[in-house]
Order: sequence, then C-alpha cells, then structure tokens
Amino acid sequence: MEDEPNMDVAHLGHIELLTPKPEASLRFFVDVMGMTESGQKGDSVYLRGWDDYERYSLKLTGSTTSGMGHAAFRARSQPALHRRVAALEASGLGIGWEDGELGHGPAYRFHDPDGHVLEIYYETEWYEAPDALRPALKNQAQRLPCRGINVRRLDHFNCLARDIKANREFFQQTLGLRLTEQIVLDDGTEVGMWLTATNKSYDFAYTREAHGIGGRFHHVTFALDSREAILQAADVFLENGVFIETGPHKHAVQQTFFLYVYEPGGNRVEVANAGARLVLAPDWKPITWTETERKKGQAWGLKTIDSFHTHGTPPLPADDGPDYGQES
Amino acid sequence: MEDEPNMDVAHLGHIELLTPKPEASLRFFVDVMGMTESGQKGDSVYLRGWDDYERYSLKLTGSTTSGMGHAAFRARSQPALHRRVAALEASGLGIGWEDGELGHGPAYRFHDPDGHVLEIYYETEWYEAPDALRPALKNQAQRLPCRGINVRRLDHFNCLARDIKANREFFQQTLGLRLTEQIVLDDGTEVGMWLTATNKSYDFAYTREAHGIGGRFHHVTFALDSREAILQAADVFLENGVFIETGPHKHAVQQTFFLYVYEPGGNRVEVANAGARLVLAPDWKPITWTETERKKGQAWGLKTIDSFHTHGTPPLPADDGPDYGQES
Amino acid sequence: MEDEPNMDVAHLGHIELLTPKPEASLRFFVDVMGMTESGQKGDSVYLRGWDDYERYSLKLTGSTTSGMGHAAFRARSQPALHRRVAALEASGLGIGWEDGELGHGPAYRFHDPDGHVLEIYYETEWYEAPDALRPALKNQAQRLPCRGINVRRLDHFNCLARDIKANREFFQQTLGLRLTEQIVLDDGTEVGMWLTATNKSYDFAYTREAHGIGGRFHHVTFALDSREAILQAADVFLENGVFIETGPHKHAVQQTFFLYVYEPGGNRVEVANAGARLVLAPDWKPITWTETERKKGQAWGLKTIDSFHTHGTPPLPADDGPDYGQES
Amino acid sequence: MEDEPNMDVAHLGHIELLTPKPEASLRFFVDVMGMTESGQKGDSVYLRGWDDYERYSLKLTGSTTSGMGHAAFRARSQPALHRRVAALEASGLGIGWEDGELGHGPAYRFHDPDGHVLEIYYETEWYEAPDALRPALKNQAQRLPCRGINVRRLDHFNCLARDIKANREFFQQTLGLRLTEQIVLDDGTEVGMWLTATNKSYDFAYTREAHGIGGRFHHVTFALDSREAILQAADVFLENGVFIETGPHKHAVQQTFFLYVYEPGGNRVEVANAGARLVLAPDWKPITWTETERKKGQAWGLKTIDSFHTHGTPPLPADDGPDYGQES
Repeated sequence: MEDEPNMDVAHLGHIELLTPKPEASLRFFVDVMGMTESGQKGDSVYLRGWDDYERYSLKLTGSTTSGMGHAAFRARSQPALHRRVAALEASGLGIGWEDGELGHGPAYRFHDPDGHVLEIYYETEWYEAPDALRPALKNQAQRLPCRGINVRRLDHFNCLARDIKANREFFQQTLGLRLTEQIVLDDGTEVGMWLTATNKSYDFAYTREAHGIGGRFHHVTFALDSREAILQAADVFLENGVFIETGPHKHAVQQTFFLYVYEPGGNRVEVANAGARLVLAPDWKPITWTETERKKGQAWGLKTIDSFHTHGTPPLPADDGPDYGQES
Repeated sequence: MEDEPNMDVAHLGHIELLTPKPEASLRFFVDVMGMTESGQKGDSVYLRGWDDYERYSLKLTGSTTSGMGHAAFRARSQPALHRRVAALEASGLGIGWEDGELGHGPAYRFHDPDGHVLEIYYETEWYEAPDALRPALKNQAQRLPCRGINVRRLDHFNCLARDIKANREFFQQTLGLRLTEQIVLDDGTEVGMWLTATNKSYDFAYTREAHGIGGRFHHVTFALDSREAILQAADVFLENGVFIETGPHKHAVQQTFFLYVYEPGGNRVEVANAGARLVLAPDWKPITWTETERKKGQAWGLKTIDSFHTHGTPPLPADDGPDYGQES
Repeated sequence: MEDEPNMDVAHLGHIELLTPKPEASLRFFVDVMGMTESGQKGDSVYLRGWDDYERYSLKLTGSTTSGMGHAAFRARSQPALHRRVAALEASGLGIGWEDGELGHGPAYRFHDPDGHVLEIYYETEWYEAPDALRPALKNQAQRLPCRGINVRRLDHFNCLARDIKANREFFQQTLGLRLTEQIVLDDGTEVGMWLTATNKSYDFAYTREAHGIGGRFHHVTFALDSREAILQAADVFLENGVFIETGPHKHAVQQTFFLYVYEPGGNRVEVANAGARLVLAPDWKPITWTETERKKGQAWGLKTIDSFHTHGTPPLPADDGPDYGQES
Repeated sequence: MEDEPNMDVAHLGHIELLTPKPEASLRFFVDVMGMTESGQKGDSVYLRGWDDYERYSLKLTGSTTSGMGHAAFRARSQPALHRRVAALEASGLGIGWEDGELGHGPAYRFHDPDGHVLEIYYETEWYEAPDALRPALKNQAQRLPCRGINVRRLDHFNCLARDIKANREFFQQTLGLRLTEQIVLDDGTEVGMWLTATNKSYDFAYTREAHGIGGRFHHVTFALDSREAILQAADVFLENGVFIETGPHKHAVQQTFFLYVYEPGGNRVEVANAGARLVLAPDWKPITWTETERKKGQAWGLKTIDSFHTHGTPPLPADDGPDYGQES
C-alpha cells in the first residue's frame, strides 16, 4: 500500500572520504579517532569504529583533493534493495550496478540532484574480530581500542547542496527516507534538511551550498557514548594539535552535542553524542526552524562560526586551504 | 513477501502499573522520578517523561495488588495494525477491541501465552505542553521538569513467564518482533529473551518465572541520558529513602547500565542509559548466552542479586512484601 | 620563621551580592541554582549549597544597585586571625572589627587597594540541617535539594581592579595567599591574577578593570560535581530563560570548565567543575600567561566573549543594563 | 602556639609497591592505567600520572613478594621537615635519614606502630616533560597519554594495621595529620581511620588487620576526573582481562566513587573520583561511623565484598594467591 511508510533502507552503511594527505589522514583516524584498520585495496584504507557491525564504516582514499567519494546505504532486504533500485532508475539519476567492492555485495550507484555519488546495497560482510581484538562481551563487535578517543560507530554525514528542496524530495521519493527537521527561510527557501532511515533522529543532513558548486561535502560524524566522552575528545584533540573549529556545544537543531575538527586532509569531522534522542513515532511531524529562530545561535547561545557556512571539501577555488592559524 | 522483515510494530507505547498504594506511588513517579501528570480517569493517573511524544507512557492504577495491568505497542500505520490484529486473532490468544481509553484510539487486546495482557493501537494523541511546560527548544515535547531525576522516556519492560520459548515464538510470529539476545541453558531450555521493534536493542524482555505462576511482572524501565545521570539518580533515591535493590552496574546482556529500585507499591522500577547501543543491522544475529557465561555475573563482575530471581509483582503468596530491612 | 608559607587563611567563607531585584534574585538562587535559604536579616537573605559546612556561603542583599557587598575569608585559628588582622592594620587599609553578623563571630573588615570590601573571621556557625533536610549520609552537611541545578558549594569569586599588581601584592603580603596563575602583558602590566588559600588552584581572581572605576565585581562561582552536571545546568538555564553569556567551555587559564550566566539582578554567576585540579605543591611556581598565549582564546578555541571584558557590577554609568532582550 | 593546627606535611608524595611479577605489573601500570615511566634504578621503575607535579608518584620494585615498600610524604618546607623529624625521633619509631633516592632529596624514614615503612622529605624534582610529552596547556605537568585509563595523579593509600587507635595517634601526634572520618565498634574499638594533610578529605586510611600480621597493605588509589571516567575504566579493565574485585559503587565513608582491581603482582589498586569532595574547615569534626551504620553496606546498598576484609599484600601464608581463575 502506497500510504504506508517505506522501510526499505535500513541504515547508513559507510562513507568514502578523499584525502590529499592519505598517510596523515590515516594516522588521524587510527591514532586520534581510535578507529581500527580492517582492509586495504588500491589507494584506499578501510576503517571501523568498535561498534560498527559491518567490516568498515569509513573508506579513506588517497586523491588529488578532499571531499566525499561516496556514501552508502544498506537496504533492509534483497527485495527492498530491488524496489529502491527500481525507483532510482526511474528517477533518471541512476548510475548503475557496481560489484567487487571490499566488504559488501553488489551496490547500485546513483547521483543526488546536486551531483554527489551514493549507493545502496544489501549483502554485507559482518566484521570478524581477530583474536587480539576479540571483545570481553560477546554482544560487541570488537574490543575497545583504548586509544585516542575510541569512536563507537559512524553516525551520519552532511553534504552541501545548491537546491535543498530538490535533494530532499529526491531522497524521500526514491529511498523513502523520512524528514525529521528542516530550516526554511522566510521566503520559503529550504536551506537545511535532516533525513532518517532509522530511529536515530537523522542519518544524514544537507545544508545549503552558498558558492554555486555541486557535490561538495560538509562533514562526517562518528558517535561517542556520552557528552563527557566528547569533552574528553576535545582534550585529546587539543593535545594532538588537531584543529578544533567549534564546540563542544549543543545544536538547537536535533539537539546534537557536537564538536567539529578538521582532519589533516581538510575534511571536517564531527564527534557527537550517540543516541539519547530517538525518533520513535512512525508518523513524526517534521520540525521547521524559521530564519528568526536560527539567528539565535546554538542551543546555549553560541554563535554559529562563520567557517561553518564557507568551509566544505573540496575547498573553493579561492580557498588555499583552511588557514588554521588565523582561526585559532 | 514473507521473507522480508515485518516492521508493523513501531514501538512500545505505554505500560499500566497496578499499585496498592496509589498516592505513594504517584508521589514517587512525580517527585522522585520527575514525571509529569498528564491525565486522570477513574482509579488511574497518567504520567509521562519529558521526551515521550505521546500523551503518556505510564498509566498508574490503584488496585488491590501490584503488577502490570497491560503493556501497549503502537503500530506503524493503520494497515499495519490490521495485519497484526489478524495474526493475533489467528493465534487464538486475542481478547478483542477496546475503545475509549485516554490518549489513543482503538486498541486490540490480547494475551501472551503466560497470561499477561497486551494491546496494539495506531491512533494516538500527541502531547501538547501547556504554557508552563512549553520547552525552550521546539523539537522537544515538553520542558525539563528539573525535579527529582527527570526521566526522559519509557524505555522497556520485563515480564516473568513460565515458558520463555513459547512466549518468544508468539511475539515473533504474531507481531514480527526481533530477537536480539537470549539465555539458553545447557539442556536447551530458554530462560531469557530480549525482543525489539526498533533500533533500540530491546523494547521488552521476558525472563523465566521459577514459581509456576502466570502473568507476573518483573520491572519497567525509564531512560536517562547518561551513565552519570544514573549515578545522580542513585544519590537522589538514597536521599529520598527509596529502596535500591541493585546497581548502578552494567549488565553483560545488552550492556545496559542499570539501577533497580522498588516503587512504594512494590513494583520494581529501573532507570537505564538511553540509546548509546543501537541495533542497526536489519538481519541481526541473536546473541545466545550460555549457562556458564551467565554464571560470571554482570559485566564488571557484580553477582546478580538473589531477589532478582524471586521478587516479581504481584508478590508470591508466601511473600509478605519485600522485607527491605534485611536486604539493605 | 618568615620564609615559611603562611597558612593562616583557611578558605573563602562567603560572599555578599547586592541586587536591585531581590525577589527575582532570590528565586533564581533557590529555584534554579538549587540553593537553600538558611537565614534572613534586614534586607538580606542567606543561602547555601548542600555541601557548604557553614551556615551560609551567599548573603543576598537588596540594594539600589548590583555588585559585591563584601567577600569573607575564614582564618585557620584564633591566633591566625589575629596575626592577619595585625598585618591588615599595618597595611593602612583596615576598616575595623564588626560583630553581630548572622552565622559567624567577629570579623575584621578591610579594603583592598581597588576599594572592594573584604573581611576575615574565625568563629563560625556550623550548619545544622533541620529534619526535612537531614542527609542520608552523615558525612554530608545537608541533603540534596533535587531542585534546579543543585550547586554543591561556593567555589570562588572574581573582582575587577584597576591595578592588578597592587592588589596581588596586598593579598600576598597581608593574608599570605598564594599566586598560582597570572596574565602579564608584553609591557609587563599584570592584567589577571589567581590566588589561593587552599589546595584548590584558586579561591579568587582579579582581572583588569578597563573603565577606571574602583570596586567593581566580575562574578561569583558555585561548584558542581562534574562537567556533565554543568552541561545539564546549561539545559536548566535554557529552560528557565536565564541569560547564558558564554560556555560551557574550558578555560585555558586554570583549566576550569565554565558556564556563565547573569542572575536577575545583573550579577554574573558561574558554575564550574569542582576540584578535579588541585595544587598540592607547597612551593607551586606561578604560571604566567603571555599576551600572545591569551590571544588563542579558551582551551578548545572558543573566542573570549566581548562582554567578559566590559560587563561588571555595578554596571558602568553608560550601561543601561545589559541588552539581552527579554531573555535576561 | 601548640593549639594551632600543624600544617607541616604538605601532601602524600609517592608510594613504593613490591611485585613478584615486575614486568607484568609494569605493563599494567603503563598500558592499562596509562601511567608514564619517568625513571629506572636497580629493580625499580618509576611511574607518574599526567597531573603529578613531581617526577613520580609510584615506585614499582621487583621483589619476592607483594605489598608496600614504603609511602612518602612531602613536607611544606625545610623547617617543617625538621620539626616533623624531631617529633618522629622522639616517638622512638624513627629509622634514620636516607639519601640518594631518585627524584627527591634527603628523606627521614620511620615505622608506624604496625611496622609499615614511611618517610618524609622536602626537596623534590619537578617533572620536566620531554618534547614528545609536552602538554598543549602550560599549566599542566605532562600531556595526556591517551592510553588505557589515563590516571590523573596519586590520590591515597590504605594499609592494614592491628591497632588502629595506636596508629591514628601516632600520625596525629608526630605528623599533625587530621582525622576526618573513622569507624568505631560498639565496644569502642577503632577499626578504620581516614587522615588528611590537605583539603582532600583523606590522603590515606588504615583499616583493621584481622589476621594478626603486621605491615600489610590494602590498596593504592589513583585519581580520575569524573565518575564517568571510572565507568569507562571498568570497561577498559574488562577488555584487558584485569580482575575487578568490586565496584564501581559509592562508599558511604568519604563518599568516594570507587573501583577496585588487582594488578598482576597481587596488589589491590583503586581508581576513584578526584576531588569533588573537599574538607575546607580547618576545625573539621571527625565523622564517626558505628557498627550498625556500617552494616548497611556501601552508599547505594552494595554489600562490602568479603575479600575486602581478607585480601592484603603480602598475602596470608595460607593464601595461595587470589583464586580468580583465568580472569586475573
């Protein structure tokens, strides 16, 4: 029945980040973020948080520039995958099937209206911890690395897009993802959207690209267990010379407790509090934030930092890379 | 297609507790748990956590004894509700439709094989906060009460049952709920099961009734945002003379950070950490704990307290009520 | 022996705040800060945190303006008191003995070089909790109020002064207080000092008054138990419409995890994390921060908010009161 | 003046632990506790927490057995040191001066009445972090190791003694340490004492030895910043196969949030929450716990574990070592 919620997408599976400094980026994700390497292929290294059940949640690929290679959703079942592929093909934005990737079966690739590359797959490889990484409790994918900030799992990603409404409708209509919050200007222009496939209040967000360029990336977020763990992470970032852009603080939108840093390749990385806020209602009514409301800054009054509206990856042509010096 | 996951149940909606001391129980839930009264009808008072989106999550009913009146699930849609009712009717354990309850539309009532009463409904009343309880952030159902321990929302419940396997199969086959963890003795007897309808790793659990009586209740759990909030709750319970049965500690099963107390009516109430651990895999492979593994105690070594295996509500005939004196 | 550390001052005892809105200020300290009223006299109400061992730590006095009435130190012993009074008298800034205050014995009042009023006393009244406020654990002064943010105890205060060096030397020479950190500009001008009488890394601070007026007040700080408790406090302030000036964030100086708000009378109030950082060395070498170092902002990069350098109480003549709209 | 508090002891400086498994013990303290090696001499390795200002706080010495080699206090000044040595010599329990230890100047060694070895010194070596361990913030001794549980600093130690009263009076009379809490049985026998030299509510404790042997050791405690950090530590201990004896829970006595483990050499090690509770009163009235009160268990009701009253180091002759199976 068409009026029933479409539950065909199970969750965000992984994201591919491009980095012009692959070795430094790898050291950041392993030593500081506390992720575990779980594969290598070509110019890519595959990484995981200790609670990610699949083989990896981050594919880190050496490149001439930064940005997002692609993002991938896992379907709920084989039939669900094929239903979504049919809808994607009908949208005219399909790219086609791709097979042979490490860790999962055939994936159908597609563009969103802004030109980002995404994919959907069903078959996946469950992570099997080697002896040295076997956890004490059998209901856990991997033992705690006890290194750096020990990120738990991939949480969400955020892309920039020139036309938020077009992208929102695309993801709702082709994948059946659900809108939980959005920002709409007084003239009706949508400038931010938060979509979910799960009981998490969002699995990804798109915010407005103000520079007329397609396919840019804003940030990827990994989950930590508590707000205290995020404060501890701030100390670890400080000690390790990682550039902290803003936070820790609490977003008004989605109430996420956030901390943003830049990894050595220039991509923005967030750590955020996992899961206290869930959307359980199957018929959740999207929250719409107005221009006036958003001018109030973040939840506890912090002004949104300017670079949040300008820095994306790959960087703008005029952007020689973030000048961390001035910002700090 | 029959081999696709059935997503018809959206989440646990509310639970009804019976109490022989209604006024003292009400004061406990309002003053100590920090819940908000959102309705009264007959012998019942309706209560909510500040993040519950429906009108209430707890119905507290004055009675001659303690225990669970009923538990209620919300269906994902109207068609989903009717599919589940058809399955329940086919099971032979259906009771029938009930209308006229505060806060939600028609509910279909049924028994589980152990005799507990449950129901499923779709139409519901979203909570509308009165002016005094309007939150600062519009994506929140109600302002923080700033009273007692400020529980966030209903998390799960736990019943006792004489035949765990029969109950597990009943909930899987009629409602499509998913088994995430279980305990199975060396002789194959199932003695504990954890089922979910959501990305939470469980929405309810059944553990073995060792006294041959049907329909008894083990505990209801409300969620707090962090482990620190649960430690603070322990201090609040201590200051308010609430009987603490065990905890705070971490369960090995489900890794829940727990704290168990008894409310004045005798029912066991848990506060637990909300949501850090999510089950995102649509094809999660249930974790089976063996007898040997469970003898190790809780995650950090705490021995499971004896009363955890004996105290349920209504109390056993020979049980003059918990003798808090000896236990403390 | 003169080269031995002078341990005559035991700790900061209490602070008197003036408020032009006494009723609103009282409601803030009782309902939001979670303090307990423990006395009234004339235009003053006396308040305490649950862990303050003396009768009160805050005297709140209705007045035509805002600011600090006085701050009070408790001496280690009767002889210690008289030694300090002799030194204060010799300084020429003594005012004289005052007796008859609620809660403590004779106090010797004096000015600091900037004109603030301070006092030192030894005899004190230990708080005796009435039955309703008797704690569950006998090693605690009072039960937790379980109201608002439940501040634990007075931690420190901060005044503005035109000549930091003169004030620093005054407190070191007359009271024997120890300098733990300071800020010194490139031209040698001292602009901030942090002094302690205890193992806390500071009991008060003075920062530079840039407007040429004497005797102004910057903030008073109450301690909470954890950083998480301060984050929870931010939520409580938000829900109660309290103006949040800046934070939560971590100071580079002293590494205090801070959150600043304005109470209804206009005085700045901080809540900060109690006690993780202790100065145990009896011969601690003061940390001197340079102009360049301080330009880096707070520990995790937050820019120091402008009002931190301008807003003090009483307000500047040109200051019509902070323009924080209806929020404050 | 004799009736003034004696402030001659500044703080606990370090403790020497003996271990029959020096390599395994070292790995525990470095890899799991996150301590930093800061010296080696003979059979000893010297270790520190990141916030310890002296060169080390733990001396780990290979030996034929386990237990405490000695504990050391730092005097407030050179004259203070000599006053305390005079008192110790007069007590008849002095051993004599020892020079040449790594990291500090001449120390006067002495026995307590139960036969433990202690020392007091003044001159000390401030830790100078090598480049790789230089902290981001200059008011910190060393950068965070970001390894294991990252203990902050030495907090206190606990010895067993056959005659608590005799030991209490010895430390009060010779060193001027202050009693903050104690346990006294109904027949007047003292069975536990908590003494302090600082604003921490205790720097060490002695509890009753029930086996008639002198000089045994109960535990050493390192401080972490928050209760959440101690819960995280429990997870790290679990993952690393460290034997957890009891906790995390909250002591009624001193309200310490505790977690006890055994290091590979058999010595009990505690991690506890640093510093939220301070004793600021210079004339603190000791809290006396009665037999009845102590039978209530710990603060939130946990029964005190039996081994807490039997396991000490070196182990009892009949004790083949703790039988914790494969877990330890």
